[in-house]
Amino acid sequence: MTTGVWLIGARGSLATTVVCGLLALRRGLVAPTGCVSAELALGDVFPDWDDLVPGGHDVVSTPLEKRAEQLVEDGVVPARVFAAIRPELAEVERALRPGYDPLTWPGTQADAVARLAADLAEFGAGHDRVVVVNVSSTEAPAAAEHADLEELDRALSVPEARVLPPSSIAAYAAVRAGCAYVDFTPSTGIRVPALTALAGRRGLPYAGSDGKTGQTLVRSVLAPMFEARALRVRSWAGTNLLGGGDGASLASPDRAAAKLASKAGVLPPGTEAPLHIDNVPSLGERKIAWDHVAFEGFLGARMSLQFTWEGYDSALAAPLVLDLARLVAGAHAAGAAGPLTELGFFFKDPLGGTGHNLFAQARALAEWAESLEGGGAGC
Amino acid sequence: MTTGVWLIGARGSLATTVVCGLLALRRGLVAPTGCVSAELALGDVFPDWDDLVPGGHDVVSTPLEKRAEQLVEDGVVPARVFAAIRPELAEVERALRPGYDPLTWPGTQADAVARLAADLAEFGAGHDRVVVVNVSSTEAPAAAEHADLEELDRALSVPEARVLPPSSIAAYAAVRAGCAYVDFTPSTGIRVPALTALAGRRGLPYAGSDGKTGQTLVRSVLAPMFEARALRVRSWAGTNLLGGGDGASLASPDRAAAKLASKAGVLPPGTEAPLHIDNVPSLGERKIAWDHVAFEGFLGARMSLQFTWEGYDSALAAPLVLDLARLVAGAHAAGAAGPLTELGFFFKDPLGGTGHNLFAQARALAEWAESLEGGGAGC
Amino acid sequence: MTTGVWLIGARGSLATTVVCGLLALRRGLVAPTGCVSAELALGDVFPDWDDLVPGGHDVVSTPLEKRAEQLVEDGVVPARVFAAIRPELAEVERALRPGYDPLTWPGTQADAVARLAADLAEFGAGHDRVVVVNVSSTEAPAAAEHADLEELDRALSVPEARVLPPSSIAAYAAVRAGCAYVDFTPSTGIRVPALTALAGRRGLPYAGSDGKTGQTLVRSVLAPMFEARALRVRSWAGTNLLGGGDGASLASPDRAAAKLASKAGVLPPGTEAPLHIDNVPSLGERKIAWDHVAFEGFLGARMSLQFTWEGYDSALAAPLVLDLARLVAGAHAAGAAGPLTELGFFFKDPLGGTGHNLFAQARALAEWAESLEGGGAGC
Amino acid sequence: MTTGVWLIGARGSLATTVVCGLLALRRGLVAPTGCVSAELALGDVFPDWDDLVPGGHDVVSTPLEKRAEQLVEDGVVPARVFAAIRPELAEVERALRPGYDPLTWPGTQADAVARLAADLAEFGAGHDRVVVVNVSSTEAPAAAEHADLEELDRALSVPEARVLPPSSIAAYAAVRAGCAYVDFTPSTGIRVPALTALAGRRGLPYAGSDGKTGQTLVRSVLAPMFEARALRVRSWAGTNLLGGGDGASLASPDRAAAKLASKAGVLPPGTEAPLHIDNVPSLGERKIAWDHVAFEGFLGARMSLQFTWEGYDSALAAPLVLDLARLVAGAHAAGAAGPLTELGFFFKDPLGGTGHNLFAQARALAEWAESLEGGGAGC
Repeated sequence: MTTGVWLIGARGSLATTVVCGLLALRRGLVAPTGCVSAELALGDVFPDWDDLVPGGHDVVSTPLEKRAEQLVEDGVVPARVFAAIRPELAEVERALRPGYDPLTWPGTQADAVARLAADLAEFGAGHDRVVVVNVSSTEAPAAAEHADLEELDRALSVPEARVLPPSSIAAYAAVRAGCAYVDFTPSTGIRVPALTALAGRRGLPYAGSDGKTGQTLVRSVLAPMFEARALRVRSWAGTNLLGGGDGASLASPDRAAAKLASKAGVLPPGTEAPLHIDNVPSLGERKIAWDHVAFEGFLGARMSLQFTWEGYDSALAAPLVLDLARLVAGAHAAGAAGPLTELGFFFKDPLGGTGHNLFAQARALAEWAESLEGGGAGC
Repeated sequence: MTTGVWLIGARGSLATTVVCGLLALRRGLVAPTGCVSAELALGDVFPDWDDLVPGGHDVVSTPLEKRAEQLVEDGVVPARVFAAIRPELAEVERALRPGYDPLTWPGTQADAVARLAADLAEFGAGHDRVVVVNVSSTEAPAAAEHADLEELDRALSVPEARVLPPSSIAAYAAVRAGCAYVDFTPSTGIRVPALTALAGRRGLPYAGSDGKTGQTLVRSVLAPMFEARALRVRSWAGTNLLGGGDGASLASPDRAAAKLASKAGVLPPGTEAPLHIDNVPSLGERKIAWDHVAFEGFLGARMSLQFTWEGYDSALAAPLVLDLARLVAGAHAAGAAGPLTELGFFFKDPLGGTGHNLFAQARALAEWAESLEGGGAGC
Repeated sequence: MTTGVWLIGARGSLATTVVCGLLALRRGLVAPTGCVSAELALGDVFPDWDDLVPGGHDVVSTPLEKRAEQLVEDGVVPARVFAAIRPELAEVERALRPGYDPLTWPGTQADAVARLAADLAEFGAGHDRVVVVNVSSTEAPAAAEHADLEELDRALSVPEARVLPPSSIAAYAAVRAGCAYVDFTPSTGIRVPALTALAGRRGLPYAGSDGKTGQTLVRSVLAPMFEARALRVRSWAGTNLLGGGDGASLASPDRAAAKLASKAGVLPPGTEAPLHIDNVPSLGERKIAWDHVAFEGFLGARMSLQFTWEGYDSALAAPLVLDLARLVAGAHAAGAAGPLTELGFFFKDPLGGTGHNLFAQARALAEWAESLEGGGAGC
Repeated sequence: MTTGVWLIGARGSLATTVVCGLLALRRGLVAPTGCVSAELALGDVFPDWDDLVPGGHDVVSTPLEKRAEQLVEDGVVPARVFAAIRPELAEVERALRPGYDPLTWPGTQADAVARLAADLAEFGAGHDRVVVVNVSSTEAPAAAEHADLEELDRALSVPEARVLPPSSIAAYAAVRAGCAYVDFTPSTGIRVPALTALAGRRGLPYAGSDGKTGQTLVRSVLAPMFEARALRVRSWAGTNLLGGGDGASLASPDRAAAKLASKAGVLPPGTEAPLHIDNVPSLGERKIAWDHVAFEGFLGARMSLQFTWEGYDSALAAPLVLDLARLVAGAHAAGAAGPLTELGFFFKDPLGGTGHNLFAQARALAEWAESLEGGGAGC
């Protein structure tokens, strides 16, 4: 039993870290640190590391190996790991296909869906199932209200029309090819009514949106802490510094808007909460977040909490991508379809909305995972 | 129906803030910010702010009013609140009694227990019940293994013997006088087998130890966060700066030892965790805690989280003391006896041990509070 | 010998703190903490605290006393100081005059200059000299290239023309009335060629721009530290959180632009340096700045320094305003005219440009102060 | 013209970084980032990187190459640099000699001096001069008041007597062998009156003590900043976290005492200044320092500054060791003898005492360097 993990944005830092990490886990070179699924009691329905096989789409053509070398330089991938997995990296390279780029694609968007779905079908032929995970750059927010699939199809067939953002083209291809879908970014992706309805009809599960990897993760435990103690948060200001591809793409104000909206939900409504994302290319893969919380206590006393989080973006996100691939594959195998709201633990802007308290989410996740086949030995 | 709140250390900063805050709450001058009990669904068995009447013991004789003036100066008590409650402060002053000071007390420790119990009995005559809360300075750790009450009584009767630390003398007096007992410090207090057994026999509830007001509070949500995300904490270093009475008393290494031990439980076992408490008198009532967490993520990536917490010690602790007074009084009224393990939410070193995850503790607290008489309207 | 200190924006937080502080210094209620001039060896040419008499213009009419009460509430002015100086505050209130508001002023800008100058002449009649200090809200950057005074006068006389920003109208009035001028904000003020030329011709000194009170102050010692140690700064990111009037006025992006430009000069050219100013009204008079410096050391090692500065905006700025009033008055008395480049110590964007190293600036200031009459006893 | 650089503690992290860095500089593999001497206008009297040849003593026998591999792992030495210099590292290995270990040395301390001096003489035969730099572990403070050389010699000749600490044995050997001496640690070293007198008589320069590489560096610009602004520092608390060899050696309270004393001088006298050094082995070569400064401004306003410094201990110190080798060699060549007080810039506890303001020290250094032969082209 093997599961394909198809990465949209397969040549980026995150996808490359996912691939390197998966190859390292399969060879037992590293412990599954940061992999939540390794701590859960998962039943046989869930694939193990050895069962996962990566592939993907990307609009750029940088060789995986070159990107991996950069990640070694940046301190994300250990040199000894890279040396050991280099041969397998070349194999994965062969499984990658050109992605859909709206600027250069010559045909209609309907053609694009068809081509991407064909790639997925070809890849999927060798596996029990495929989970498509979008880890490409954040898009600007897009209104995509299409509720009727036939109308959507007609609109996509108009030459030169750009009806859906690339993430939704990819999501449509996934659903058409019978793949489960995960959105690890705040992009629109599958969140088009006609697409979610289709996924439901086809018995496909999906999850999202926007992986929770740093500042928002910390906020999702600190905001409930203030609430639990009846302390009144007056302001919660935040700054993010990041280099790498993500920093560059988020330097665009409209793309940043998607990210900022996705981050806001975790705070108490009405909080004064200025928030910035700055592109600082010289930081490379590092990201730094600073938060300042001004709160009021007994007798109106003014107090504060501030924190600084420093990490490697890809190292924080990659284990969650692997977790999601395993969990969503298991859900698919167990017959779950539609939005997997129990996976809110992983996301800044969770589908369904089980709230933002990390520990409530963790409990929901653990119970859900055990409920699929009644659990089993951890891996 | 009134409940006496008897404070051991009644002339200290914390007790004075408790008293000022209670008087302000009763007059509706301030909101119950920081009071967790105000958010719980509490039934009739629990006293309301109006039902609480303060009194207490102290070994010093500084007038309450003078201490309150200092708290105004230090920014803990608002000037307008002080002006409004001044007359009632004088009333509370009259309810205070000299505490037991082992250095100057002329009689045996048995005499001391008797005298303190007599004070409590006199005070309790006017109320339905009394909750004794120890908010006096942290003591050095003391071994107090006495399991047999009669033997303990004999030992206490030996002239000049100093068998129990003052916190335990106070706890014994509380139990003898039929009062519930709360230890808001890490001192020994009621944690002497003969005393806890007696409390059980007499149907008295008790709770402790060591109120969780800042650094440990934050740790109790961050440590589980790392665990939930399978991130490996490698070191967790901390520093506390505090002025005020607490800073001075913790400047003594043996007293600090009690506090440091109480703080350590919340971290993963085996973590490298240097921790300091520094006395910085010029900070006054302010306290500042800095923590640095070095953790390891996917592929061994080294990352860090640091936070700084700045607050007013008394403003953080006082609402919890009031919460505990209400909750323990309600438990007593409802017939609960022995250790109230469901109150672990409030403590660094909780009796019984329901773990250190703040949200698990919060849930346990809420369920327990509702279970006493099935809950009711919040206050 | 008395010196008038005329504040543009006289009813704002900063001006009110200046006035309260001056009255408190004159009565000996407080030490001159934060007053640099109190540490300098100043000769007789410089006025002492007792010689300074405040007045000013403002476009709002909030009573000084009410603003001062707010500053007591916000923790800037001690309650005991306010109680003591209240009577004298009423006197200062009587010396305040309505400022020039371009939105409501019915006449030409030339009329406005004439009216403001008349106010200054009236005020100045009672004093040896007057120093006008602009402490009003930051304006949006304005191009004001007028080099010819007659042409400027003609332009100002056109009905409804708005040729100069309010800060420059005030500066023009100051020069016309024979007053020295200080710009404590980044607004245009006297930086119009025709006005600086006129000040020179009339023998009037002036100083500016933009008082250095927090983040930039720290940067002006840290940036030279990295340089002195041959460490390569790669990025220097900063965030400012401030409430109060300044926060609100800087929430406007074009006004913030003036401030951000003024702050940038202190860093090494070419540094990646994202910088934000956020309006957080609930912070009141508090301001918080966080800076993160990523630097490279030997063998390319990546290291970092971060700092958080927390203070009260008005308490940081007010002593510098008083220092500048004394120093500029002394310069005027000693016959200095034109830009006082030796006062760069006080400013983010110093006139003349003696560099940004705080200690080089401090030395230049001390030498200059001593050179005026050869120094003398400090005050 | 070549200059020997003899490192006491030659197999430690710092010395190994010095050696790797020097080899990398000589091959042009890296820029001299962090090398202050590269920014100075140095005359011909000073050796260039190419002229420096390393050697040294150590009491352990870990091969240099193995230590360098560890430094690659810890992120201090880039893998590409290590690969390139590996052959030359083996050459340096051959120039290392066993150090003096009081626990195992079979002879008298006089014998030890003779043996170390003989090693230096042998090494020095190939060079114009040798600078001995102590970079070994910090010793516990030792009283070494010996003023008379003959008496000292007699004491050293007593079998089994341990009269001087190892750092002073090494310093004595250096002076006897005609070498200049630098103490980069707070150990006693040459600070024995009989030894400094001898150095003076023999025309040998020396410098020290305790390289200023992080927290104290930052303090040496921030403390003067507060002073320049007449702001009153009330408390200045600090914590240091460090792994590596230095962390382990400073875990011993008496050794830490030496370091803490050396760090204290830079703060205003009388400041409340608790300071800790914690050994956190898992940090490896990283070190983290946190400082919290509480200060008072105008009208008594309470404000604060805090900073966190994160770096690699060896990467911060190594360029300074190279700078000192060059500068002290130049001083020796130019005929300077005795304490080089102009090098206070480099030290926490500078000989002679030109104060602690970093920029005053930088100026003194630059002027001194230029004065030796009137300066010349930088390198």
